[in-house]
Amino acid sequence: MTGTSRTIGIVGLGLIGGSLARDLVARGVDVVATTRSEATRADAADAGITVVGDVRAVVGEAELVVLAVPLPALSEHLAGVAAALPAGARSPTVTDVGSVKGPVTAAAASALADPSVFVPGHPMAGTEHQGWAAADPHLFEERRWALALDPPVALGRWAEAAALATAVGSEVVPVDVAGHDEAVALVSHLPYALAAAAASLLRSDEGTGLARALAAGSFADLTRVAGGHPTLGADMAVTNRRALGSQMEALSGTLQDLAQALGSGDAGADEEAVAAWFSAGREGREALEAARASPGVRHRATLDREGLLALGRRGGRVVGVAPAPPAAEELDVTTIDPGRPT
Amino acid sequence: MTGTSRTIGIVGLGLIGGSLARDLVARGVDVVATTRSEATRADAADAGITVVGDVRAVVGEAELVVLAVPLPALSEHLAGVAAALPAGARSPTVTDVGSVKGPVTAAAASALADPSVFVPGHPMAGTEHQGWAAADPHLFEERRWALALDPPVALGRWAEAAALATAVGSEVVPVDVAGHDEAVALVSHLPYALAAAAASLLRSDEGTGLARALAAGSFADLTRVAGGHPTLGADMAVTNRRALGSQMEALSGTLQDLAQALGSGDAGADEEAVAAWFSAGREGREALEAARASPGVRHRATLDREGLLALGRRGGRVVGVAPAPPAAEELDVTTIDPGRPT
Repeated sequence: MTGTSRTIGIVGLGLIGGSLARDLVARGVDVVATTRSEATRADAADAGITVVGDVRAVVGEAELVVLAVPLPALSEHLAGVAAALPAGARSPTVTDVGSVKGPVTAAAASALADPSVFVPGHPMAGTEHQGWAAADPHLFEERRWALALDPPVALGRWAEAAALATAVGSEVVPVDVAGHDEAVALVSHLPYALAAAAASLLRSDEGTGLARALAAGSFADLTRVAGGHPTLGADMAVTNRRALGSQMEALSGTLQDLAQALGSGDAGADEEAVAAWFSAGREGREALEAARASPGVRHRATLDREGLLALGRRGGRVVGVAPAPPAAEELDVTTIDPGRPT
Repeated sequence: MTGTSRTIGIVGLGLIGGSLARDLVARGVDVVATTRSEATRADAADAGITVVGDVRAVVGEAELVVLAVPLPALSEHLAGVAAALPAGARSPTVTDVGSVKGPVTAAAASALADPSVFVPGHPMAGTEHQGWAAADPHLFEERRWALALDPPVALGRWAEAAALATAVGSEVVPVDVAGHDEAVALVSHLPYALAAAAASLLRSDEGTGLARALAAGSFADLTRVAGGHPTLGADMAVTNRRALGSQMEALSGTLQDLAQALGSGDAGADEEAVAAWFSAGREGREALEAARASPGVRHRATLDREGLLALGRRGGRVVGVAPAPPAAEELDVTTIDPGRPT
């Protein structure tokens, strides 16, 4: 982890925190962590993690602290970080892994004396499993990890968090907080809502037995995330409710277009309109597949805050960060940039 | 394939027909098939399939004919089957693999002099790939295969089709036509519509680059089937438009419940209502997983038409069929029956 902190602190050892801790330990990085679960504390110590008693002890020993706790617990833990900082001492860089960045950014601004140390983060690496038992040291390989770069986030602090994410195999997407929350409302929170909605229809359907017997791959895929963490879907929906509401409205409008094309009662379907409607979906899926299949081309660049945010808006990622001085105004980064001529 | 036909005829060698033909040939069954694609004809002959010129030749040589053609082509092929039958000759049993059973049943009733020979069928074994090139001789293993048993379908004919499906490793779900079409509107056609709707939102989203860069597992799963066969989704939607329309309305109502619980504008979310909403989805998904994970218990039974249909309604399947005389009123079947006390 050239250019970044020597000791990484992790608060919370669930799926994300546990996977990150195990990954870093496997790479020879010192990890100091805390969790409330006694059973997990013992397992984590056996796995080579230095387990300490509380957030204060993590903050005291780490140069970079990852808050890997559920969304509703983030405010409390940010307050814990603030309380742990001795007056006048240099704060560690702090980042989180929550799936909505607006509220946690606001919480950091009010909790921390110097909010420039807080880098709002979001590794796109969930699974339908949860907890330390599901932790996987390869969880972050070839994943995307969003890191917000709005002011007042300091560029040097952002570089530290980005170096951590790239060290475990992720590509870092530079985002602004609002843009991130709008994008994940579509690509993550809407799928959770649709999964739950469809699964609950199966539950209440009168022909439940037959429908379950016939449920095939497409329904299993659609509803997969409905069976995950018991509160994750609700937490995300509540925390990102405005952006999710907009996406649900957009989706309902799209479904109404299909219903109109299909006709009602004895009015026949407008087959051309139905075909065009499904073609639009096909084009969207193909564009997604093309974007994901492209290995991209690596470029070295020196970018400032605006340059990094523009990179993220066009789907680009940072895959390497050179050591940055704390007060850097630009970073030497290696990027994969779909908008750059090759 | 004890108790069933010695030569199987297959019309159409796409994903479903091609996979079935290759599977049967691997089991030593004689397969006679036809397809319009010259390239596929040559490949199929190389694979040990007897390739003939048209539907008439298939009907003349096979005891059981599988129409494995797209939904819009079924009526035409049923007419072809009818035209191929010499007056007074015993008709082969005919089945199809379309995903909607109402219209094809009506087409068979008007096309065939004796519609009791037609067994409406639907193997739940699609993938996002298509055509002979994607054919997989293991496609039907551990899948569900719906076979309709409404009058006038003759029980002995149904047993022949069921023996074919179980021979290639599928579990047969006895269904009535209307119940099947309602169930697949929920578990198959609604997922296709949601996949296309969500993928088209990504396409039109202004922050397309960022959203694509952040699209994670849940969005990829949700939209997978949007990238499949170019006309399959539209064909299914048009053909099953009333049942799909009902399910889309039910889904929209469920999403409106969530929108109301999330609140609008400055009104806060009703967090308990949001949690309960997601819990209903979780229960539906858990019930589905439990149903799929249960290996079931095999029972032998003698069942008539009503007994078989009741088995299907409670999620049961037929996994074996003893030889049935053509005019059977009951069948000796091996079932997996979730509703039977063990």
